[in-house]
Amino acid sequence: MAFFDDAGYTARAMATRAYVPDLLLSGGSVLQGAALVVTDGTVESVGTPPPGAQVIRLAGRAIAPGLVSAHSHAFQRAIRGRTEHRTQGRDDFWSWREAMYAAAGRLSPDDLYAVSRMCFAEMAASGITAVGEFHYLHRDPDGRPYADPNELGRTVARAARDVGLRVVLLRVAYARAGFEMADNPRQRRFIEGSPDEYLRNLHALSKALSPDPLATVGAAPHSVRACPAHWIEAIAHDSSREKWPLHLHVSEQPGEIAQCRKEHGTTPPLLLERLSALTERTCAVHAVHLDEADIAALARGRASVCACPTTERSLGDGVVRADRLLAAGVPLSLGTDSNVQLSILEDARELEYHLRLVELRRAVLDHAGGALLYGIASEGGMRSLGLPGGALRPGDPADFIAVDLDDASIAGAGADDLAALLVFSLERTAIRAVWVAGEPLTLDTQGAVAPFRAAMRRLWS
Amino acid sequence: MAFFDDAGYTARAMATRAYVPDLLLSGGSVLQGAALVVTDGTVESVGTPPPGAQVIRLAGRAIAPGLVSAHSHAFQRAIRGRTEHRTQGRDDFWSWREAMYAAAGRLSPDDLYAVSRMCFAEMAASGITAVGEFHYLHRDPDGRPYADPNELGRTVARAARDVGLRVVLLRVAYARAGFEMADNPRQRRFIEGSPDEYLRNLHALSKALSPDPLATVGAAPHSVRACPAHWIEAIAHDSSREKWPLHLHVSEQPGEIAQCRKEHGTTPPLLLERLSALTERTCAVHAVHLDEADIAALARGRASVCACPTTERSLGDGVVRADRLLAAGVPLSLGTDSNVQLSILEDARELEYHLRLVELRRAVLDHAGGALLYGIASEGGMRSLGLPGGALRPGDPADFIAVDLDDASIAGAGADDLAALLVFSLERTAIRAVWVAGEPLTLDTQGAVAPFRAAMRRLWS
Repeated sequence: MAFFDDAGYTARAMATRAYVPDLLLSGGSVLQGAALVVTDGTVESVGTPPPGAQVIRLAGRAIAPGLVSAHSHAFQRAIRGRTEHRTQGRDDFWSWREAMYAAAGRLSPDDLYAVSRMCFAEMAASGITAVGEFHYLHRDPDGRPYADPNELGRTVARAARDVGLRVVLLRVAYARAGFEMADNPRQRRFIEGSPDEYLRNLHALSKALSPDPLATVGAAPHSVRACPAHWIEAIAHDSSREKWPLHLHVSEQPGEIAQCRKEHGTTPPLLLERLSALTERTCAVHAVHLDEADIAALARGRASVCACPTTERSLGDGVVRADRLLAAGVPLSLGTDSNVQLSILEDARELEYHLRLVELRRAVLDHAGGALLYGIASEGGMRSLGLPGGALRPGDPADFIAVDLDDASIAGAGADDLAALLVFSLERTAIRAVWVAGEPLTLDTQGAVAPFRAAMRRLWS
Repeated sequence: MAFFDDAGYTARAMATRAYVPDLLLSGGSVLQGAALVVTDGTVESVGTPPPGAQVIRLAGRAIAPGLVSAHSHAFQRAIRGRTEHRTQGRDDFWSWREAMYAAAGRLSPDDLYAVSRMCFAEMAASGITAVGEFHYLHRDPDGRPYADPNELGRTVARAARDVGLRVVLLRVAYARAGFEMADNPRQRRFIEGSPDEYLRNLHALSKALSPDPLATVGAAPHSVRACPAHWIEAIAHDSSREKWPLHLHVSEQPGEIAQCRKEHGTTPPLLLERLSALTERTCAVHAVHLDEADIAALARGRASVCACPTTERSLGDGVVRADRLLAAGVPLSLGTDSNVQLSILEDARELEYHLRLVELRRAVLDHAGGALLYGIASEGGMRSLGLPGGALRPGDPADFIAVDLDDASIAGAGADDLAALLVFSLERTAIRAVWVAGEPLTLDTQGAVAPFRAAMRRLWS
């Protein structure tokens, strides 16, 4: 309990909590016995509890930065487990996409809420504190705008906030099936009429969410396949003025690059550079199939890359060359994307492990016992979403997790191997509590299950 | 409650339990509302509870076959998280091995028990019901035999049985560092003097374990690197007569194949065929670097392959070509090997996913929604250990797990997608109960933690 000696001091003391775990991962280092001091949703200091702070001992626990999924499609939780039967001679990304479209076409706003809430509740239980939701469902099943064109975007943001997550709604611009490709009726819920219409809706969404400081927006031209050059140019220009993050799918599949070469005579990253769409606020999602010139362009533009290895392995996309990107100075983040699994730390280890399988050696990216990969999973994600912090340094948002040092997956951890055990071995059973902006979440996945199951029955029966 | 109508009937009824979950994965198919009827540690029937059976409703649960780690080195739990700092210019399998040897050299019998028990307790909590423990620590730290040369083998088997796992102690024969290679003092705890000495000790271990039907042995010449041809021949001959499983590390690393070519002028699988060491009881562990002739030899011999993808990605070994092995008719199983992670279902999905990353397509191995991969993780493992069952068919051992259908990772599962959700998305939080030979395990990882932590302090301080 805190002690209060005068009115002014009391007010400060009541708002200040000092969490004292056995181990604290802060600023990329593990500290023993240090306090994480939190005031008004922000890390005030790290070290000694200040006088008057409420001291909360977390014996047998480690505190670590909250994890960030910088790229999620929450509604795809509805097709988890439903795309593993071979449907034709060859299953690949494009046949998977047809199955995904079948679900996307049928979701009502209530279904979308139920599925998204299930997905976000699982994210919280897995230690995720912030999500970049790459949201492309805008219209009704017949392709007509809802009375509020942000009906579905607001629905998804509400689901994230009801769970307690910090959310950046990356509202997606989708113009067409592809260069010289016939319209695909299954994309009609994604498509809006013009860059102006899209930007008007994005600004309206930003305004609608603005009362809640934990729900913000970003711009997201879907890809160079789905957006012609003038859309990307207009959206990049506007989002640069607004200082919004700008996310795009980039070079996920060879077929997408072939289309880009045919239309523009160059690769997606070089096209984006030509369109002034590569800045420090740009995040190229996937970026699997890059050549050296692509990597150099991303580095010149100070753009970042968001890898989504659990999805990229599921969809047969390929391996992100995180080693070459890091060598060129391109910052990295991670996303759970299709949400077939919800474990950003599994994504972090795969970023390293997939390269080990390619190179047949160890410690390709991370020579520092996991700290670099953990930073990509936390601070890297915040950066790609245009948010500060992610490392539990003084001044960072107080987004953090408590893990049980007695959990079988990490038992025996000390200051020297905590980061490696978190990144390479942690199981979800170890995650015991999650705070966003200094407030503890309830981690209630149970309450999400019944509405989710009802939505699934409506969708699939 | 059961009803008893006469003495003979009572005895049968008291021993018979009918577990009735919502969903039951039996014989590779998912049944709704069917009972798993268990008598004397064996699946008696599947379907309707017989009169007089004790009916146990498991509402909100699915029952599935117990998972099998057919290749484990339990003591390597002691180096989890401790090999991720880059130690030299190039980290690879061989530099990792030096770190592992450092731990192996220092373990006392009590340490080995504590570390193994921690590892096996985590296995049980992850749904593993049977383990093939590839055990090569035989002698004391100075290379002298213990008073009982099976002191350490018995210790490891006891740790597994104290947790409740079914264990096959694959006692390893280790003769040398390699062909024309100088002795490595860090291997002195592994090495015995002759095939005769090794076989004498293996027979003695078999006898020592024999009172417990759930603890059996297998023969395990470590590899063609560590065993000269006459060792492998003698051991294969003896184990064939005893009908023991015969496990060997095969073609894990290119360096091992180069040594084999130099000594024998051929590859490890073809050498094993020449030595009459490929039979239906042979299991080639890893088998990463195979050519078509190697695969054909394994198929001709009716040998199986045990892949260990979570370890193979961690060590930079490479990708097991499970597609080519299955096409040739080679049965597969999975092992947790170094136990850097304990999730056989993660191993199962990686068997498929690593091939998707190589082939850039989906559904490479499993066209049936996960059932094939689940079978490899359960029935495939039992087969490779020379044990019956693994599919919860009538007559199989009653080794099974109960998973929570409300767990966030698999919520919404129905009969059509249960196997896919188990294989591709299950988190450990879903595993709620585990039975071996019809008896429930306590899943007490907590009791293993304090002794494990004390052993780790002794080892690393």
